[in-house]
Amino acid sequence: MSFSFGTNIRMTVFGGSHTAGIGCVLDGIPAGTAIDLDEVRRFMARRAPGGSATSTARSEADEFELLSGIQDGHATGGAIAAVIRNTNTRSQDYSGYLETPRPGHSDLAAILKYGEYHDIRGGGHFSGRLTAPLCFAGGLCLQLLQARGVKFAAHILSLGGVTDKPFDPLAPSDADAILTNALPVILPEAAAKMTEKILAAKADGDSLGGVIECAVTGLPAGVGEPMYDSVESVIAHAVFSVPAVKGLEFGAGFAAAGMRGSENNDSLFFDENGKLGAKTNNAGGILGGITTGMPVIFRAAVKPTPSVAVPQETVNMKTNTNTQITVGGRHDPSILPRAVPAITAAAAVAIADLMAAGRFL
Amino acid sequence: MSFSFGTNIRMTVFGGSHTAGIGCVLDGIPAGTAIDLDEVRRFMARRAPGGSATSTARSEADEFELLSGIQDGHATGGAIAAVIRNTNTRSQDYSGYLETPRPGHSDLAAILKYGEYHDIRGGGHFSGRLTAPLCFAGGLCLQLLQARGVKFAAHILSLGGVTDKPFDPLAPSDADAILTNALPVILPEAAAKMTEKILAAKADGDSLGGVIECAVTGLPAGVGEPMYDSVESVIAHAVFSVPAVKGLEFGAGFAAAGMRGSENNDSLFFDENGKLGAKTNNAGGILGGITTGMPVIFRAAVKPTPSVAVPQETVNMKTNTNTQITVGGRHDPSILPRAVPAITAAAAVAIADLMAAGRFL
Amino acid sequence: MSFSFGTNIRMTVFGGSHTAGIGCVLDGIPAGTAIDLDEVRRFMARRAPGGSATSTARSEADEFELLSGIQDGHATGGAIAAVIRNTNTRSQDYSGYLETPRPGHSDLAAILKYGEYHDIRGGGHFSGRLTAPLCFAGGLCLQLLQARGVKFAAHILSLGGVTDKPFDPLAPSDADAILTNALPVILPEAAAKMTEKILAAKADGDSLGGVIECAVTGLPAGVGEPMYDSVESVIAHAVFSVPAVKGLEFGAGFAAAGMRGSENNDSLFFDENGKLGAKTNNAGGILGGITTGMPVIFRAAVKPTPSVAVPQETVNMKTNTNTQITVGGRHDPSILPRAVPAITAAAAVAIADLMAAGRFL
Amino acid sequence: MSFSFGTNIRMTVFGGSHTAGIGCVLDGIPAGTAIDLDEVRRFMARRAPGGSATSTARSEADEFELLSGIQDGHATGGAIAAVIRNTNTRSQDYSGYLETPRPGHSDLAAILKYGEYHDIRGGGHFSGRLTAPLCFAGGLCLQLLQARGVKFAAHILSLGGVTDKPFDPLAPSDADAILTNALPVILPEAAAKMTEKILAAKADGDSLGGVIECAVTGLPAGVGEPMYDSVESVIAHAVFSVPAVKGLEFGAGFAAAGMRGSENNDSLFFDENGKLGAKTNNAGGILGGITTGMPVIFRAAVKPTPSVAVPQETVNMKTNTNTQITVGGRHDPSILPRAVPAITAAAAVAIADLMAAGRFL
Repeated sequence: MSFSFGTNIRMTVFGGSHTAGIGCVLDGIPAGTAIDLDEVRRFMARRAPGGSATSTARSEADEFELLSGIQDGHATGGAIAAVIRNTNTRSQDYSGYLETPRPGHSDLAAILKYGEYHDIRGGGHFSGRLTAPLCFAGGLCLQLLQARGVKFAAHILSLGGVTDKPFDPLAPSDADAILTNALPVILPEAAAKMTEKILAAKADGDSLGGVIECAVTGLPAGVGEPMYDSVESVIAHAVFSVPAVKGLEFGAGFAAAGMRGSENNDSLFFDENGKLGAKTNNAGGILGGITTGMPVIFRAAVKPTPSVAVPQETVNMKTNTNTQITVGGRHDPSILPRAVPAITAAAAVAIADLMAAGRFL
Repeated sequence: MSFSFGTNIRMTVFGGSHTAGIGCVLDGIPAGTAIDLDEVRRFMARRAPGGSATSTARSEADEFELLSGIQDGHATGGAIAAVIRNTNTRSQDYSGYLETPRPGHSDLAAILKYGEYHDIRGGGHFSGRLTAPLCFAGGLCLQLLQARGVKFAAHILSLGGVTDKPFDPLAPSDADAILTNALPVILPEAAAKMTEKILAAKADGDSLGGVIECAVTGLPAGVGEPMYDSVESVIAHAVFSVPAVKGLEFGAGFAAAGMRGSENNDSLFFDENGKLGAKTNNAGGILGGITTGMPVIFRAAVKPTPSVAVPQETVNMKTNTNTQITVGGRHDPSILPRAVPAITAAAAVAIADLMAAGRFL
Repeated sequence: MSFSFGTNIRMTVFGGSHTAGIGCVLDGIPAGTAIDLDEVRRFMARRAPGGSATSTARSEADEFELLSGIQDGHATGGAIAAVIRNTNTRSQDYSGYLETPRPGHSDLAAILKYGEYHDIRGGGHFSGRLTAPLCFAGGLCLQLLQARGVKFAAHILSLGGVTDKPFDPLAPSDADAILTNALPVILPEAAAKMTEKILAAKADGDSLGGVIECAVTGLPAGVGEPMYDSVESVIAHAVFSVPAVKGLEFGAGFAAAGMRGSENNDSLFFDENGKLGAKTNNAGGILGGITTGMPVIFRAAVKPTPSVAVPQETVNMKTNTNTQITVGGRHDPSILPRAVPAITAAAAVAIADLMAAGRFL
Repeated sequence: MSFSFGTNIRMTVFGGSHTAGIGCVLDGIPAGTAIDLDEVRRFMARRAPGGSATSTARSEADEFELLSGIQDGHATGGAIAAVIRNTNTRSQDYSGYLETPRPGHSDLAAILKYGEYHDIRGGGHFSGRLTAPLCFAGGLCLQLLQARGVKFAAHILSLGGVTDKPFDPLAPSDADAILTNALPVILPEAAAKMTEKILAAKADGDSLGGVIECAVTGLPAGVGEPMYDSVESVIAHAVFSVPAVKGLEFGAGFAAAGMRGSENNDSLFFDENGKLGAKTNNAGGILGGITTGMPVIFRAAVKPTPSVAVPQETVNMKTNTNTQITVGGRHDPSILPRAVPAITAAAAVAIADLMAAGRFL
């Protein structure tokens, strides 16, 4: 526990990096929802490894087999299930990591929790590979939401000291630009510089973290529940489940902590067309835990991939001695490009679940 | 929905700022757990309003009446319930806010969600007053955890440009100092300066946000579940439910996003006594979503109180016109001092629930 | 755990027979739902003790105090909470039952689960008194459902060898008759005979069980979820939580087990007005776990009150010896009359929760 | 929703009768639990179709492919997932049933719930075939529980007027005999007579219902939670999810409703070895919703298979006219033999979840 998330729309994922398969069961998609599986595939392709020089050398298409729940392009009301085969699992011996955990990796925690039973191959069920079934679920929820006018966009806001153009918090309209660039960023020049930084880190056998910004537009007002199912709470629950996420902020976030109330409060107005607007969006579209109709904006801090090919200090848990380790294998020098769809997917499932709870679906 | 949080230990809160009472039902505390209600009262007193010049003029003791679940100083295995009366509810007319929502406040979202049925008096169930029953639950969980060696400490890390001494991430041992100062900060001089800043904002009819840092020590390794019930996910779910929290980070958090992997990874070692240690704690005591045995450290960004006595632009939802508002009433110039126990309580309930799930309780 | 039931509409109860209070928190009632609290009181009065010679001598009005969630006769969207004081708690010493559990009572199980920490006074949180907050929640849900045309009726179908007229499974229309009689039965002569049987058992210091039949009409088709949230599953979960219920059947129930398929299947037809009907209702209005639009009919077997004033064999758990016990105190010779509203309430909460899940609310 | 069951041990099933596959995800099995997959296969074989003249002609081995969660014969702590292919799905046209629902079948309810989107092939996700993944989960839980001394036995207690020997409620010790007979019954002569009855019904194109009795021994005292997670509630929730179950009773059940308290109460005693015993087990091993350590005994009423080859009255939902139908296809003349493992599985998952909640696992 717990490989499930959600109440009225519930996603259950399974598998590990080197098990026979990984997959997802998505329950609660209303019968009759139109689903374009090719669109899901395109979304998942953005997460799949091996797309470029900036990602891991492990190349897998992440091709899923649909097992149930969709018929003639529509959800049937049954659980939607899909399996993705693990085909490109190297025969490398991971068992040493049960003795000498890789710093920054889940190894240490997993050994202390599961002991010798931990499936450490490729990180087992802690592997970032588990974001593939998350993206399957997210891809379906994105379509469900899109049909109701709710759209998501996300980009790498910063990486290796390079900063992309932030979203306009009142009108985040750069989704098309993001999809055009090789990296999911708005500005081509930022994409180019980030690529340089990633390749430089790769050349050093090292890795880079970064910040991802996500915007959700078209959300009706009133989504979210008071107290313990606030929009922030539920998105945070989902997004912090994406491996490597260590921070999250909504709207002005940590910057709001440095403001005065008169400065942070978003002034309201009706525009000339009688449409409710706000002069700023420090609230990130959420007040009292409930959406206001303004864009929901959040930023997630993603730590650098822990698997780096430089010598690191660690311990041997069997001999109780100190030792060094240099992690081999095929790893992403920066997980950021692939984390963009994963974080989008997590948010999409969270919001779909909240909209179902609030009878918006 | 949803006024409940937790699975194996479940807290349910109820009430609004001006209803007859507010309260809490806490289910799942193991029978036989020793509970010192006076200790709970002392913890709740740290949250209660009216303690000083830096807080709201509304003065209520937050005195609770225990209704069930504790007998002769021990949990019986039944649900623990308590009610707190709302005694000091001014007869002020809040109904105007149903027409002209206060910027930055829950008013707008609540009106759009509930319409005329929203109990807007004092913010209704969105009021920060709902953190009183949260602190009741948290106070009980703190005792449950303390008996197993798990301790919490929290302080205001920054406010109005003043920064307190951060916790030593490997040995956050300043809990006593925090409790000594008038404000929950480590350094007396920082407390004094923050007080000045709060009083200055108060004099201007304005308010201040800030950052709260919390440390949890003594946690066993292995707490937390992979994927969707990671320690980060569950703490985040609870902490983002505390009104005004807009950001959260664990360990190095957003700073980790700027590091290389070789820098961010925490090196492991056995010390001379054979005790497992780490040279840094950028992970905030959590790897793969699971505790490692290192201190869990997080920081929450708290926005400034939205109720400020300066003129603000807003709208009249009834006449569909733009207007101005100046919010009166008794409000905290900074909610930070009172948010410290609230955030501690949220984290304590979250961790207690995770420990129950992992059979640590 | 677990004093909560429900997902989208969640009831949480608390308290024990002799704690300061018992009560209920009901979360998820849509904002704007009209609530007549006097109607709730009338419903709860049907459960309250001391109404007649056939019930316990403990007399309490079950008067609740509303703490939150309803304003000007409408739900606000906040959690609805109420507390009922325990006023008529005799000073009798119950502690002996911690040593010599009463046969058929929860004592034995509670001692083995909680040890000395069990609050055994009046049965603690296992007391039938906890059906008072259940009836509070049920009374609210009945109003919520009534506004959508869904009605409940329940009666004692059999008691002490006396059988009431069963509901017409296709048109259970005897609700008014049930409310007219002193006991909740359809036929006055059955009511009279059952009263005799109860008084005779009372005179013997003994008690009687019986069967309660409940009908729900006006339910739309499509309520309930496949597999694990079937209508039968969710009603059963709730109804088996009412103390003393030991059996439950839907439609033809156990009789269906003795039929052939051709006999048990309900033939369908359109009547002259084009309305879909069935010639029988062996399915109890539920096929595949989902409502069909026919009345939902179920019957619950209620065991006789275990507290009887005749000598019984039991054990002394402290001395590990066999002994006898004669249970004193004020007890119902038959809980059946008071179980009728309790079972109705349980079913009402279950169906309200299912209707919320299915977006019927 | 909802294809999931359980809180601390959670089973999620997916698929429909004619989808590419059906399967199960089981989350919460403790890392290190020894699992013999061949033993799971043997258990599932008892449910698989086509074993004999008394079952459906559809023959499928129900062979599952393990996708994740078990490594070297032990649970890893990850989610355990398996898929079963649907290989023997006849190309028969089911679409007519969207117009003319089969009486007693899920068709009517499913059409009214899902409209044209219902996957009606073979009953879609309402098919009894979904008990295959249930049996996968149950087979795993049986091993988990067996390792703690908890054992399950179940048999057909009655079918077509033939009654098997009931379990001795104090010592249900006939598990071996049940497994020996062709049908899961204790007495060979009852098995023979039931077989005759089934074949006679089959010859008539008709079907038979029956009653299944299940006993759980070796359960520790204290399992189950007060009120809404009583053992009866949770088992009932699971067992009523098995298609065709329309009634359930624990211990004396409906017979208890006809008893006096002095008769129904189970007298307690210490035997000569100091072991706590009861003279009867009318409580079915459960008091106050909690296990007492006595065997848990329950009986489930299973309705006859609705698919019968005799003409039945039904409606055409498209033309709004009355019509007749004769259901073809391959169907079980009695589902009882195959329902025995399904009901056992449901109870095993329910009890495993309750034991996890109570920290018995």
